[in-house]
Amino acid sequence: MRNFSFQNTTKLIFGAGSISNLMAEIPQDKKIMLTFGGGSIKQNGVYDQVQAALVNHHYIEFWGIEPNPKVETLRKAVELGKRENIDFILAVGGGSVLDGTKLIASAIPYTGDAWDLVLNPSLIQRIIPFADVITLPATGSEMNAGAVISNLATHEKYAFHSTYPQFSILDPTTTYSLPPFQIACGIADSFVHVMEQYMVDKNNSPLMDRWAEGILSTLIEIAPKIRQNQQDYDQMANFMLSATMALNGFISMGICTDWATHMIGHEITALTGLTHGETLVIVEPSLLRVMKNEKRKKLLQFAERIWNISETNEDKKIELAIEKTENFYRSLPLKTKLSEHGIGNDVCEEIVNRFRERKTQLGENASIDADTIKEILDLCK
Amino acid sequence: MRNFSFQNTTKLIFGAGSISNLMAEIPQDKKIMLTFGGGSIKQNGVYDQVQAALVNHHYIEFWGIEPNPKVETLRKAVELGKRENIDFILAVGGGSVLDGTKLIASAIPYTGDAWDLVLNPSLIQRIIPFADVITLPATGSEMNAGAVISNLATHEKYAFHSTYPQFSILDPTTTYSLPPFQIACGIADSFVHVMEQYMVDKNNSPLMDRWAEGILSTLIEIAPKIRQNQQDYDQMANFMLSATMALNGFISMGICTDWATHMIGHEITALTGLTHGETLVIVEPSLLRVMKNEKRKKLLQFAERIWNISETNEDKKIELAIEKTENFYRSLPLKTKLSEHGIGNDVCEEIVNRFRERKTQLGENASIDADTIKEILDLCK
Repeated sequence: MRNFSFQNTTKLIFGAGSISNLMAEIPQDKKIMLTFGGGSIKQNGVYDQVQAALVNHHYIEFWGIEPNPKVETLRKAVELGKRENIDFILAVGGGSVLDGTKLIASAIPYTGDAWDLVLNPSLIQRIIPFADVITLPATGSEMNAGAVISNLATHEKYAFHSTYPQFSILDPTTTYSLPPFQIACGIADSFVHVMEQYMVDKNNSPLMDRWAEGILSTLIEIAPKIRQNQQDYDQMANFMLSATMALNGFISMGICTDWATHMIGHEITALTGLTHGETLVIVEPSLLRVMKNEKRKKLLQFAERIWNISETNEDKKIELAIEKTENFYRSLPLKTKLSEHGIGNDVCEEIVNRFRERKTQLGENASIDADTIKEILDLCK
Repeated sequence: MRNFSFQNTTKLIFGAGSISNLMAEIPQDKKIMLTFGGGSIKQNGVYDQVQAALVNHHYIEFWGIEPNPKVETLRKAVELGKRENIDFILAVGGGSVLDGTKLIASAIPYTGDAWDLVLNPSLIQRIIPFADVITLPATGSEMNAGAVISNLATHEKYAFHSTYPQFSILDPTTTYSLPPFQIACGIADSFVHVMEQYMVDKNNSPLMDRWAEGILSTLIEIAPKIRQNQQDYDQMANFMLSATMALNGFISMGICTDWATHMIGHEITALTGLTHGETLVIVEPSLLRVMKNEKRKKLLQFAERIWNISETNEDKKIELAIEKTENFYRSLPLKTKLSEHGIGNDVCEEIVNRFRERKTQLGENASIDADTIKEILDLCK
């Protein structure tokens, strides 16, 4: 294990009916901006519950934070927040609304342009306190300091770090009306978040391994049950909890992480608009195949503990484990090849060129260069 | 799953050499009280490292917080803290020093007697900020709000809740010189902490189950390696991490917990002075045998997942799992029968009488009454 520092201050408020806690959690003297995505929360009762809980608070509303939140949209919220002297922000919706809110909260006290902070988070001086009612289990944003922001003008998509939500309200019943496609992407996203922290060769911890495996096995166990009945409270509750625990630092203490799948996936989204979860399940199986020697020991453990594969030939065992993982993604159901989305060679070439120009090397050992990314993307076709 | 609220604000600073972080973590304008146990930290270099890190800070020292910290000792620290206007406390040592410090931090701002706060924590009005350098992995006190305090005069021992340490420094190399008996008790303590949260029948979560099992399996895996070489950094690091994660709320979100083993064990310590970990490994196997019908489903899962027992007869399978658990405790090595400690029937009778008088019923379903406690203690002999 390597040395680490860990602190996660977010208060989780979890369970059916928990939106009513907003009343007590936000001081009444705060001038609140509520941030929203599209209108789905007006159909499923979430908006009504938020309004009822905040009946004695002062708030304004900002609507329209889109999936893969764009700085172009967020700038409007920043402007509104500055004008109205907002001192608390409550995001209501999925991970994108919350990610966007993290940038808004950092950019309202900043005099320059919001995109500066994405490129250079050290410019952040003060962050307006924010919290959330999260209605889509996927990104883990509700219990971490990260956010991913896109720039429409430049076709860029970057992760940036702000701070932790003060509190996050998770009511599993709010997920009952989610489109099944979003559930599938959420399960995939959570699964790959864990894989990015688990599928590494060095600085392992047997405890962190088992906690990562615990989330993976839980997602594999509950996915078919959720497909059968999306209104099964316990299954949705465990899905929500798994998604949050997948990216809150609990499974990455003292270990190395990878994140190459995400880095490549972000480029696919930036260039084609493909949903985040969809990009991950395309890239990851190919990445594991290409990187199988570097990750051999952990891939063998993964084959045994997650997929119960007893095959003695190591390479066969690894390929079987990757096949089972890909089949799991396909069962969600999600497509796992670029061609199934009509994405062709031009996009792959542009991605490889971008990484070649940036000279960034990806993965736990920074061993994935532009040529390796080409090899991975060729397998994704 | 049931509704829950979770927040753990402690900052973990983990790894070799991390004591030097004290310098930056405690503001220089604080008037610090350092609290210690006996003198072992003067032999193993911890005291020197603390002194070096705090060379530019103002501090006074309070020595002599004993195992199973006694309110009689802590009152002296409270008096000193009041007199010297202490506004930060740093505990350096094991869980007992930190537990005692939690009471000291709560009692310095309180006008009455410290024991009042143990009996009635709602009397706590303000808590002086405190942190710790923890040198004995066992209690989990470094990342929770609880403490257990004894009263020499009344032979009582109670858990009480104050608040979380601001930060906790865990340097695995500080455990290299611990007496093997304390390591054995620490492993047992951590194992049973997990069992208290895992071995329950209702409000289960598959994720929390797997995280609990992850700690149990890790402890089983590392215990013999630690016995072989107590200076193996990675083993001691994973032991420290496991002990902290065993009792910081991470494995009890949305589930029921039990704690009957602890409640009975505390009485044994209060009456005989037996070390906490020793009492737990005596009580728990017998408690599981007596409560096996209530806990049948989880005991079967425990038999399969932790001990790989494939026996088809359920009762045999459960008994085999309990035997393996008891053998694990004996391998640490710890004694698992009262008679091995020369503890006789008079102590058991006194414990049963105490619970009969208090009319408290223990366990996840509050189904363990004085008669059941008698049955459990009879099996412990």
